[in-house]
Amino acid sequence: MVRAAVVTCGGLCPGSNTVIRELVVGLNELYGVKDIYGIPMGYRGFYSADPIKLDPDSVHDWHKKGGTMLMTTRGGFDLEKIVDAIVKHGYNQLYVIGGDGTMRGALDIFKELKRRKLRISITGVPKTVDNDIGIIDRSFGFDTAVEVAQQAISAAHTEAESAVNGIGLVKLMGRSTGHIALYATLSSRDVDCCLIPEMNFHLYGKGGLFEFIDERLKQKRHTVIVVAEGAGQELIARTESETLERDPSGNPLFADIGVYLKKEFKKWWDQAHPGELFTVKYIDPTYMIRAVPANASDNLYCTLLAHSAIHGVMAGYTGFVSGPINRNYGYIPLEDIATTKNVVDTKDHTWAWVRSVTNQPDFGISED
Amino acid sequence: MVRAAVVTCGGLCPGSNTVIRELVVGLNELYGVKDIYGIPMGYRGFYSADPIKLDPDSVHDWHKKGGTMLMTTRGGFDLEKIVDAIVKHGYNQLYVIGGDGTMRGALDIFKELKRRKLRISITGVPKTVDNDIGIIDRSFGFDTAVEVAQQAISAAHTEAESAVNGIGLVKLMGRSTGHIALYATLSSRDVDCCLIPEMNFHLYGKGGLFEFIDERLKQKRHTVIVVAEGAGQELIARTESETLERDPSGNPLFADIGVYLKKEFKKWWDQAHPGELFTVKYIDPTYMIRAVPANASDNLYCTLLAHSAIHGVMAGYTGFVSGPINRNYGYIPLEDIATTKNVVDTKDHTWAWVRSVTNQPDFGISED
Amino acid sequence: MVRAAVVTCGGLCPGSNTVIRELVVGLNELYGVKDIYGIPMGYRGFYSADPIKLDPDSVHDWHKKGGTMLMTTRGGFDLEKIVDAIVKHGYNQLYVIGGDGTMRGALDIFKELKRRKLRISITGVPKTVDNDIGIIDRSFGFDTAVEVAQQAISAAHTEAESAVNGIGLVKLMGRSTGHIALYATLSSRDVDCCLIPEMNFHLYGKGGLFEFIDERLKQKRHTVIVVAEGAGQELIARTESETLERDPSGNPLFADIGVYLKKEFKKWWDQAHPGELFTVKYIDPTYMIRAVPANASDNLYCTLLAHSAIHGVMAGYTGFVSGPINRNYGYIPLEDIATTKNVVDTKDHTWAWVRSVTNQPDFGISED
Amino acid sequence: MVRAAVVTCGGLCPGSNTVIRELVVGLNELYGVKDIYGIPMGYRGFYSADPIKLDPDSVHDWHKKGGTMLMTTRGGFDLEKIVDAIVKHGYNQLYVIGGDGTMRGALDIFKELKRRKLRISITGVPKTVDNDIGIIDRSFGFDTAVEVAQQAISAAHTEAESAVNGIGLVKLMGRSTGHIALYATLSSRDVDCCLIPEMNFHLYGKGGLFEFIDERLKQKRHTVIVVAEGAGQELIARTESETLERDPSGNPLFADIGVYLKKEFKKWWDQAHPGELFTVKYIDPTYMIRAVPANASDNLYCTLLAHSAIHGVMAGYTGFVSGPINRNYGYIPLEDIATTKNVVDTKDHTWAWVRSVTNQPDFGISED
Repeated sequence: MVRAAVVTCGGLCPGSNTVIRELVVGLNELYGVKDIYGIPMGYRGFYSADPIKLDPDSVHDWHKKGGTMLMTTRGGFDLEKIVDAIVKHGYNQLYVIGGDGTMRGALDIFKELKRRKLRISITGVPKTVDNDIGIIDRSFGFDTAVEVAQQAISAAHTEAESAVNGIGLVKLMGRSTGHIALYATLSSRDVDCCLIPEMNFHLYGKGGLFEFIDERLKQKRHTVIVVAEGAGQELIARTESETLERDPSGNPLFADIGVYLKKEFKKWWDQAHPGELFTVKYIDPTYMIRAVPANASDNLYCTLLAHSAIHGVMAGYTGFVSGPINRNYGYIPLEDIATTKNVVDTKDHTWAWVRSVTNQPDFGISED
Repeated sequence: MVRAAVVTCGGLCPGSNTVIRELVVGLNELYGVKDIYGIPMGYRGFYSADPIKLDPDSVHDWHKKGGTMLMTTRGGFDLEKIVDAIVKHGYNQLYVIGGDGTMRGALDIFKELKRRKLRISITGVPKTVDNDIGIIDRSFGFDTAVEVAQQAISAAHTEAESAVNGIGLVKLMGRSTGHIALYATLSSRDVDCCLIPEMNFHLYGKGGLFEFIDERLKQKRHTVIVVAEGAGQELIARTESETLERDPSGNPLFADIGVYLKKEFKKWWDQAHPGELFTVKYIDPTYMIRAVPANASDNLYCTLLAHSAIHGVMAGYTGFVSGPINRNYGYIPLEDIATTKNVVDTKDHTWAWVRSVTNQPDFGISED
Repeated sequence: MVRAAVVTCGGLCPGSNTVIRELVVGLNELYGVKDIYGIPMGYRGFYSADPIKLDPDSVHDWHKKGGTMLMTTRGGFDLEKIVDAIVKHGYNQLYVIGGDGTMRGALDIFKELKRRKLRISITGVPKTVDNDIGIIDRSFGFDTAVEVAQQAISAAHTEAESAVNGIGLVKLMGRSTGHIALYATLSSRDVDCCLIPEMNFHLYGKGGLFEFIDERLKQKRHTVIVVAEGAGQELIARTESETLERDPSGNPLFADIGVYLKKEFKKWWDQAHPGELFTVKYIDPTYMIRAVPANASDNLYCTLLAHSAIHGVMAGYTGFVSGPINRNYGYIPLEDIATTKNVVDTKDHTWAWVRSVTNQPDFGISED
Repeated sequence: MVRAAVVTCGGLCPGSNTVIRELVVGLNELYGVKDIYGIPMGYRGFYSADPIKLDPDSVHDWHKKGGTMLMTTRGGFDLEKIVDAIVKHGYNQLYVIGGDGTMRGALDIFKELKRRKLRISITGVPKTVDNDIGIIDRSFGFDTAVEVAQQAISAAHTEAESAVNGIGLVKLMGRSTGHIALYATLSSRDVDCCLIPEMNFHLYGKGGLFEFIDERLKQKRHTVIVVAEGAGQELIARTESETLERDPSGNPLFADIGVYLKKEFKKWWDQAHPGELFTVKYIDPTYMIRAVPANASDNLYCTLLAHSAIHGVMAGYTGFVSGPINRNYGYIPLEDIATTKNVVDTKDHTWAWVRSVTNQPDFGISED
C-alpha cells in the first residue's frame, strides 16, 4: 500500500502547485493511491507540522495558483528528525520539490534511508526558476519567468524612452547563472546590454560599461540594461569591501547590483556630463515574476515532470530525478543532479547570439 | 489659421499618449487643423528643442503605447523663454498635459499671455495618476493604475500565503493622497490593511499597526499590507529625523515608507517573537504600473478629455481645464484646478468602506 | 435570527461571484450572520435542489473566478413553488442576482410575500453585462466586458490590416442596447463603424453601409466594424423573412447579425468588385468576454453593491435594488427597475461622440 | 552587393513580424546590408505591387505587433512572373515566410532560378501555427497559440461549470494535425476530451463520444471538449455527404466540426435525456489566437530563425530552410521540408500522455 508525501522547499517558482497537483492526481488516477499527504512548510514540516491529506478534489485548481499551497521555508533540514518522522508516519514514497540545497538534502535522506535499510522511495523534482540545474533541458518555471520579465523590461524601456538620457535598469533573478537575464534579453529586443554572473565587466575606461552607455545615449537618447542578480558581485566587493552574508539555506546573500549600478550611474553622469538631464529608473520585479501561476508551457512541463516522477517511483527507482535530456525523459541519479550546474558558457553560440543581438562589447577583456 | 502646440510634463501616466493622439486626430478631423506640433521634453522643450510635426498618420497607434512619445522632463519652467518661444513659433493654441506643478505653470503662462495681450489660447489636461486633482471626477490613468496594481497585490498575497508568518507589503503611488492605495485595496479583497497619507498610524502599543498584524498572523498566518508612497512620512521623520529633499519640480522627495516598514517589521518581530519564522516581501511596482498603456476605460476617457478640450478652445475659451463633474463635462478655470486638491476624507463613507472591508482599526486615535 | 439565501439566474456576467462572495463576507463580518445559503441553478433551485451552506472560508477566492459558483439556469420560475420553498427553508432574507427577467420574477416574489404577509426581505442585484438596466449609473460586469472586447477588436484589426481589402467584423453583446459596442468602439480607436440596435442602417445605395465601407477600403485598404448582437434585426427579418424564436426565459432569439453581414459583404463585393481580393474575418467573442473574472473596477463595484444591498435589508427595506445614481448609492423600488430600460440615445452627445470619433455617417436617414 | 527581398504568404501566425524585423535588423547590423525590401501581399506582390524599403528604424517595433506588416494573401503564385520580377528588381537574396504551399512555391522558384542559372539565393522560413512542419523541432507561433488557447478553454470551462449539464466546446486550429489541440489540452488540465484529425471517433454506441460525455456529466455535471479543426471530417462527410471545397491556395475548405458537434450534441441529448437541462457553449477563438503578437518564447525563436537564415544565405547556401533539430540549428533542403509532415503519432508516448491525463478512451477502436 502506497503512502506518499510531497514537500516543497526554498523560494517560490511558477509551477510548484502544478507539480503538487499532478503528483496527487497522477498517483490517484493512474495508480489508485489514496494516501497522499502534503508536508507543510518545507523540510521542517516533516517533524514540526501536521501533514495535510490531499486528493484530486482538494488540489483541483491548484495549477492556476502561484506560490505553493503547501507553504515553503528555507533551512530546517534536520536529517535524523526528518527520517524519524518519515518512518513514524509510514510514508513509503517521498516527492521532494526544491532547489539545489533541497536536492542535496534529498540525497542525504536517500543515503540515510539506505543506511537504515528502509524500503522508502525518494525522488526529487528540481525547482529553480534560474534554470541553473544541470543535465536536464530546463527547469520548470523558467519559461514563465522569461515571459513575465518582459513586462518589467517593457516598463523600463518606456520609462527610458520617455526621458532625456533615460536609463531603464532591470534586475532579474539569477544568483550564479544569467539564464533568465539572457533569455529575457533575447526575447525582448528592447535591451541594449545584458550583464550576467558568468562574465566580468568594469565600469570606467575603455571597453567599460559607461563608455558603452555613453555611445548608446548619444545614438538613441535612452538605453535599457538587464542585469542578473548575481552579476558584478566581485565588482561591488572590490569597490565597497562588503562581505557576503548567507541566508538560512546557506545561500550567499547578494549585494544588490541594481541599487549599486543606479548609484554608480548617477555618480558617473554627474562627472561626465555635469548639468545635463539624466534619469535612471530601476525596476526589481523579482516577486512579481516568481509569484505568478505557471504559463501554458510550464503547466504542461510540470505535468509531464510529475507523471514521469511517479512512473519512475512505481517502477521501483529511488534516489533519482526525472527530466528531459535533449527532449527525451530520463531518470538521473540525485547525486549527479546535486553536483552539476548549468551555467551560461560565454564562449558558446548562445552568448554569441546575445552579443550579436545587443551589439554589446565584451566588457571583460581589459580594464584600464 | 490654427497653429497648435502640445506638451507633456512631469512623471509618466497611462493615457498621456492617447490624449496627444486624440488632440492631433480631433484637431485634424473635426476642425481641419494641419499645423500641430509636439513640444519635446516638457516645458524646457519650448525654448531648447525643435518641435515635432504631428498628424493623424504619425500618431496613429500612440494610444497603444505607455509613457509619452513627446518625452517629458521635470522642471525647466522659464516663463519668459517659454512665452517668447510660443510667440516666435506662432502657436495660437497650447495644450498642456501635466500634474499640479505643470498646471500652475500653465496658469502663469495664461497670465503672461494676457499681460502681453496675445490672442493665444491655453488649456490644461491634468495628468496625475494619483487622482489628487480636485473638482473633476477622476484623473486619467487612475483606473489603469488601480487595475495594474492588482498584479503587485496578488504577488504579495501569494508570497505571504506561501510563507510562515509571511507579510506581503506593497507600496503604491500617492504622495499626498491615498486614492490608488484605497481603490486598489477595495478592488483586491486580499488586503488586510491600507495605510494612506490622510491618516495617522503608529507602530507599537495598543491600537498600533504591530498589534493589528500580530492578530492577523495569528488568525491567518499571513497578512497583506498596502501603503501609499506618502503615508507615514511624519512617523519616519519623527523616528529617523530625516529632512525631506525636493525634486527639480519642487515636489518633496519622500523617504521610502516601504523600506522603512520592512525594516521596522523585522525589528519588531525579532523582539516580539524571537526565533520564530517570519518573512517580509516588499514590492514597489511604481514604474511597472505607470509605464503601461491606458486600459479601455482610460483610453475612452482620454479621448473625451482631448475632444472636450479642443471644443472648448475652438469655442473661444482659454485658461481652462476640461473634465467631468458628476459625469457631465464642464470647463473649469485653470486657477481653480491649480489650487484645489482631492484628498481622501477619512471621515466619509468611502473610507468607512475600506475599514469595513478590511476590518482594520482606526490606528490614528491614540498612541501609548 | 437572519437566514439568508442568495441565487443567481440568467447568463454569465463578470462579477457575479464577487457579489455572492461579498454578500456572504459582508453578512458574516458586518452583522454576524452565520446562516447563509446559496441556491444552486437559478430560480428552479429553490424547489429542486439542495441549498449550499456558505461562509467566508468557502467563498474566499470566488472573486477571482468567472461565471457563478452557484450555477445558473434560465427559466424555471414557478412562483408558488419558490415561495413555498422559501417558507419551508425558513429564509428571511433573499438576495436575487439576475437580469431584467429575473428582476420581474423578484418583483412577483416580493408581491407574493406581501400577499402572504410574510416578514421576508427581498432585494435584487441587477446583472446585465449589456448595461441596459435603467436608473442606476451602470451595471456590474460592463466595464470588464468593454475591456476584454478590446482583444477581439485588436484581433479583427490585425486580421484586416494584414489582408488586402480586409474587413474585421466583431459582434459584441447587446440585444436591445448597444452600450458595449459603443463603449468598446470609443475605447479602441481602431473601429471605423459601430452598428447598434438603437439605430437603423441599410446596406446598399446612397448613405448605406456598403458605400461607407467602399470609401474606407479605398482610403485605408482595411476596415473594422463592430456590431451589437441586436443590431439590424429588422433588416434581416425584412431580407430573410425569418421569424424570431424565444429562449426559455422568454427573450427573443436573435438572428446572427454577424453571420448575416459576413455573407452580405461577400455578396456585395463580388458584384461591386469582381475578381478583386477581399477578406472578411468575423469574430464572435461573446463567451470569451462574459466568462472572465471581474476586473479591478468591477470587483470594487460589486463589493459596494453587495454591501449596500445588505445595509438596505438590515435597515428594514424590502422589494428594492441598491445602486449608484450619479455616483451616490440609493435604494430603488424593484418595480421601477423592472420597468425601465437604459438605451443609447442616438440624439444625445455620447452617440455624437461615436460619430465624431469614427466619422461614420448617419446610415438611418434615407434609403434608395 | 546584397539586395534582399522578404515576403510573407498565407494565414496569420504570431511571430511573422518578428521574423521580418530580425531579417532586416540582422542583415543590416551583422552584414551591413542596406538594400532590403518587403514584398507586400504575398507572392503576387512580386509582380503586382511596389516593394517597400525596409531598415532597422522602420521595423523597430514590429515584433510587438500581430499579423504581418507586409500584408499577406493566399494564391497568386505565378512562377514566370515572380522570377521575372526578381530579376527586374535585382534581388539576389530571397527570404520567403509561409506555410507548406508557400514552401512548395519557394522550391519551384529555387528550381527555376537554377534553370535560368541565376546567382540568387532563396531560403524559406516555415510559418505554420499548427506545427505540422516536419524535421524541425517546432514551428514559430505554436507556443504562443497554445498559450492564448488557454483563454478560450478557460472560458469554455467557466461556461460549462456554471451550467447544469454544461458542455464547453472549443475548436482550435489544426487542419491535418492536432498539435495545438493536444498541447492546449495537456497545458490546461480542464479538458475532458481532445479530438484530433489523427484519430477516428464515432458518436453513438459503445466506446463512442456520447457514452463518454454521458459518464463525465454524471460525474461532474459539466465537461470540456477540445476539437482540432480537421478532426472528424470523415464523420461529417459520412453523415452529411458534404463535398469539400478548396481555398485559393488549394487547401481543402473544412466542414466546421464545431458547429457540427454542437448540433449533434443537442440532437443526442434530446433523445437520451428528454426534458433535462443541457447547454452547449461553442467557442471558435481562431482569429483571436493567430492575430496576437508572439510571446517571449516565440520572439526569441523567431530571432534565432531569422539570424540563422541570414547566416546560411551569407555562407552561400540556397534552397534551404534553417531550424532546430533536437535543439541544434541546421540547414535543411527546401525539398525535404516541402515533402515531410509532422503528425501526431497516436501510437507514441505523447498521445498516451493525453489519454492518461484526460482519461479519455480510445474512441476509434470500434463502432456499432
